[in-house]
Amino acid sequence: MKRLGKRLRDARHAKGLSQEQAAELIGVHPKYMPRLESGGANPTVATLVAASVAYGISLCDLFRPDDEGASEQGR
Amino acid sequence: MKRLGKRLRDARHAKGLSQEQAAELIGVHPKYMPRLESGGANPTVATLVAASVAYGISLCDLFRPDDEGASEQGR
Repeated sequence: MKRLGKRLRDARHAKGLSQEQAAELIGVHPKYMPRLESGGANPTVATLVAASVAYGISLCDLFRPDDEGASEQGR
Repeated sequence: MKRLGKRLRDARHAKGLSQEQAAELIGVHPKYMPRLESGGANPTVATLVAASVAYGISLCDLFRPDDEGASEQGR
């Protein structure tokens, strides 16, 4: 889950969003974001879909193995 | 979620597992499986990780866009 959390944080940074802004877009409580991005949460698919839309990143890219090379960010 | 459910069902069939067998491997109640495979459930990442291990399919392949072509099944 740590890698997922890092990918989510990197994608948020790439969009220049604060955790508060991202929480609002995703529809989660702002206090959930640190746990989500540290890998300490167990998000549902619906939360991940909302994050992928907010950050402009595909779900596959969120889970792509490091060696497979993510497709262009923010496509 | 429908596409995810279909991918999970196809992966289970590819492994020759019944829903009961898969439920035990994934650690969910057997009655959850029909909802999971119809797209009516909102599974957590932990459930998807367990399913990907049980079915020998990567999480990225579960979410890969149809046009991107899944990597070989059961790698």
